[in-house]
Amino acid sequence: MGIPDDSIGIVETKYFTFAAPPHEMVLESGERLGPITLAYETYGQLDKDKSNAILVAHALSGDAHAAGLHHEEKTPGWWDSMIGPGKAMDTDKYFVVASNVIGGCKGSTGPASTNPKTGRPYGQDFPIVSIKDMVDAQVQLLDHLGIERLLTVTGGSMGGMQALQWMVSYPERIRSAIPISTALKHTPQQIAFDEVGRQAIMADPNWSEGNYYDHSPPAKGLAVARMVGHITYMSEASMAEKFGRKMKESKGPMKFSPDFEVEGYLEYRGENFVKRFDANSYLYITKAMDYFDVVGRKTPAEIFKGLKAKVLVIAFKSDWLYPAHQSQEIVKACKWAGVEATYCEVHSTYGHDAFLLESGEETRLIKHFLSSVHASGDGPGKAASHEIRLPGNR
Amino acid sequence: MGIPDDSIGIVETKYFTFAAPPHEMVLESGERLGPITLAYETYGQLDKDKSNAILVAHALSGDAHAAGLHHEEKTPGWWDSMIGPGKAMDTDKYFVVASNVIGGCKGSTGPASTNPKTGRPYGQDFPIVSIKDMVDAQVQLLDHLGIERLLTVTGGSMGGMQALQWMVSYPERIRSAIPISTALKHTPQQIAFDEVGRQAIMADPNWSEGNYYDHSPPAKGLAVARMVGHITYMSEASMAEKFGRKMKESKGPMKFSPDFEVEGYLEYRGENFVKRFDANSYLYITKAMDYFDVVGRKTPAEIFKGLKAKVLVIAFKSDWLYPAHQSQEIVKACKWAGVEATYCEVHSTYGHDAFLLESGEETRLIKHFLSSVHASGDGPGKAASHEIRLPGNR
Repeated sequence: MGIPDDSIGIVETKYFTFAAPPHEMVLESGERLGPITLAYETYGQLDKDKSNAILVAHALSGDAHAAGLHHEEKTPGWWDSMIGPGKAMDTDKYFVVASNVIGGCKGSTGPASTNPKTGRPYGQDFPIVSIKDMVDAQVQLLDHLGIERLLTVTGGSMGGMQALQWMVSYPERIRSAIPISTALKHTPQQIAFDEVGRQAIMADPNWSEGNYYDHSPPAKGLAVARMVGHITYMSEASMAEKFGRKMKESKGPMKFSPDFEVEGYLEYRGENFVKRFDANSYLYITKAMDYFDVVGRKTPAEIFKGLKAKVLVIAFKSDWLYPAHQSQEIVKACKWAGVEATYCEVHSTYGHDAFLLESGEETRLIKHFLSSVHASGDGPGKAASHEIRLPGNR
Repeated sequence: MGIPDDSIGIVETKYFTFAAPPHEMVLESGERLGPITLAYETYGQLDKDKSNAILVAHALSGDAHAAGLHHEEKTPGWWDSMIGPGKAMDTDKYFVVASNVIGGCKGSTGPASTNPKTGRPYGQDFPIVSIKDMVDAQVQLLDHLGIERLLTVTGGSMGGMQALQWMVSYPERIRSAIPISTALKHTPQQIAFDEVGRQAIMADPNWSEGNYYDHSPPAKGLAVARMVGHITYMSEASMAEKFGRKMKESKGPMKFSPDFEVEGYLEYRGENFVKRFDANSYLYITKAMDYFDVVGRKTPAEIFKGLKAKVLVIAFKSDWLYPAHQSQEIVKACKWAGVEATYCEVHSTYGHDAFLLESGEETRLIKHFLSSVHASGDGPGKAASHEIRLPGNR
C-alpha cells in the first residue's frame, strides 16, 4: 500500500508516565491518581525557539493516533485530513502533539489499568476524572516535551472542551485556541443522551458493577450506547442522503433483526465499537463531559478574563448535538472578556461528524489563522515575562 | 376527589371481539389473526343520523382511555384536555370513539395475548402488524357501532399516521381528518431512534427472544428504550427550562447513579413505563411505525387522489422528532390531489410532546374546524351514493 505524499507517513504511539506514588496527581475531585501514563504521538519538528507546537485533543472515542499511518495497524489517524505536510496543521511548519486522555482505554491510564493498590484493574475504583484533570495531565506531558507555550490547542467536541479548559486554566501557556463543535457546558439534552448510553451499559448484566475484566464485557449495552451516539453525530439530512428508506439485502434470522439499511449501519457501528472501546471508559469520559462547566457561577465577562490568546471558534450548521448557538456563546464570552475571537459557522449536512469530515473548509479557516498567530511574533520568548501558571490554580 | 365540570366524568373501557377463527382478519403481511379484541371507550351520544362521530387514535404508548376518569384507576385520559363538554371535541355535540391498537398491551390483542393455537402467549409468534392493520380493525369496530362515516379521525404521532391511513384506505368513510405531529413515512433518523429502543430491549437477557411471560420481563432494556423516547419527545428548550443543570438532592448508591435532575427524570420515566407496558408490544408497534409509508411508489398527486375529506394538518415548531417539514409534505400531497387542506404550525417549546400539552391552541384550531365540517351538511346521508370501500382495497 502506498503512502500518500501529504501523509506524515508511518507513526508510532509513545507513552509518558508520571505521578508515581507517593507523588500522585491530585484530581479536581480531591482524589489522587498515580502512576499516570499518557499515550501520545508527535508529528513534525519542534523548532529551536519552541514556538511552533500545536496540541490536538480528541473527542469521546478518539485516541493519540491523530495522523499518519499507525506502524502496526496501518490505519490512518482520526484527523489525518487535517495534519500532515501542507495540510491545515502543516507538519513542515509545526510540531503537532496529539495526546490521549486519562480515563480512556487507548494506552493512557483508565479504569481498565492496573490499580497499584490491588494489582487488579481499577474498574469502578477508578476515580472520577474531569476535563480539567485531562488537561492537567497534558500539561505534564508538555513540560516533559519542553514546551512552555503552545502555538495553539485545538479539537472538536470533547477535544474542544479541552481547548476551552486550556483557555481557562492555562491562559499564559497558549497563544491561541481553536475550539470546534463544542460548548461551555452541556445542556440537559446533551446530558440526557450520555445518560441513556450509560444506562444501557449498566443495564447489561455483564457490566457487573464495572468488574468484568475477568469475563465477558457488557458488549450489548455498550453497542446500544454507541448506536445512540451515532444517531446524534449525524443529521436528519445526512441520514436521508446515506440511507433513505432502503432495505438491507439480507435480513437476519429474527423477526426484529435489522432490515432497514440504517438499522444495519447502527448494528455494524455498535458491534465494531465494542471491539475497540472499554465500557467503563465510556462511563467515565461521558461523565467528564457532563460535569464540564467553565461557566459555573461566573459572569460572562469573567469566564475568559485576562486571556491574551487569539480564539477561532468553528461550528457547523447541521450539528444538532452541539448546536451553533453554543459556539456563539463561547464567542460572546470571549468578546465580554475583550478576547480577540473569530466565529465561523460552516455549511454542512454532516451534523456533529462535520468536524471530522469537512476538512476542506476547516483547512481554509485554520491554516490562515495559524499562519497569522505564528507570524505575530508573540512567541514564547515573550512568555518569559508572564507568570506561568501551575496546575490547580483554575 | 371532585370531578371537574368540563370532564366527561367516570368512564369505562369496553371490548369488542371479532374475527373468530376460521374468519380471521387477513393482515397486510398476508398472515391471519383472530380472534381480535379491541379495547375502546366512547364519550357523548351518537346522533340520529350518525353524523357526529369522531375517531381518536393514540400514539405509541397510548390506550383506549383518552378522556374522563377511568372507573377503576381514576386516572384522566391521555387527551382529557381536548375531549369533554365544551372542549375541542365537545361531547355535548359529538360522539367520540377512542380505540386502542392491535399489537398493543392495553386490552387489545397483542403479543401478550393468548395464541389460540398453543394456549400460551403469542410472544414472537404474533404476526407483524401494520398501521393499515390497526385501521382495518378500527373499521370493524365502527361497523359494530353502526358508524358508516366519521365526522373526523384525528390523533398525534402514530395517531396521526392512523388518520393518514384512513385518508388513503377509507376516503369515503371520513368527512375530515386532523393528522397532528406526524409524517407520511419515517425518515431514517426516526427509524434509527426506534431501532435503538428495540436493540436495547433485545439486548436484555430477560427478553429471551420474546418468551418471557412466565418469568421476569426485559425491564431494564425497555426502560432504556423509553428513556431514548423521552429525549426525543422533549426539546432542547423545554429540557433547559425544566431541568437546566440542577443536581438531584440525593444521589443513588453507585458512582454512576443519576445525579443531574434530568437523569433522575429519565430514570423515573423508564421505571414507570415498564410497569405499564409490554416490551414485545414496543417492538411490534415501533416496527409498524417504521414500515408505515403511504407514499411508496406513488407520485405526490396520487397519494390522496379522490379524497373528498377536508384536512387540517397541525405541526409544532420545536418538534424535532416529527419536524414541521414532514407536516408540510402532507399538506403538499393534499394540494397536489386537490384536497382542501389547512396547515397550522403552532409555536411551542414542548417539542413532540406539544400535541398532548398545547391544548389551548389546538382547541382553537380544532373546534372551529369541526364546527365547519359538521355544519357543511356533507353528512352520511349523502354517503349512501358513495361506494363504501371494504377493508383491503387500498
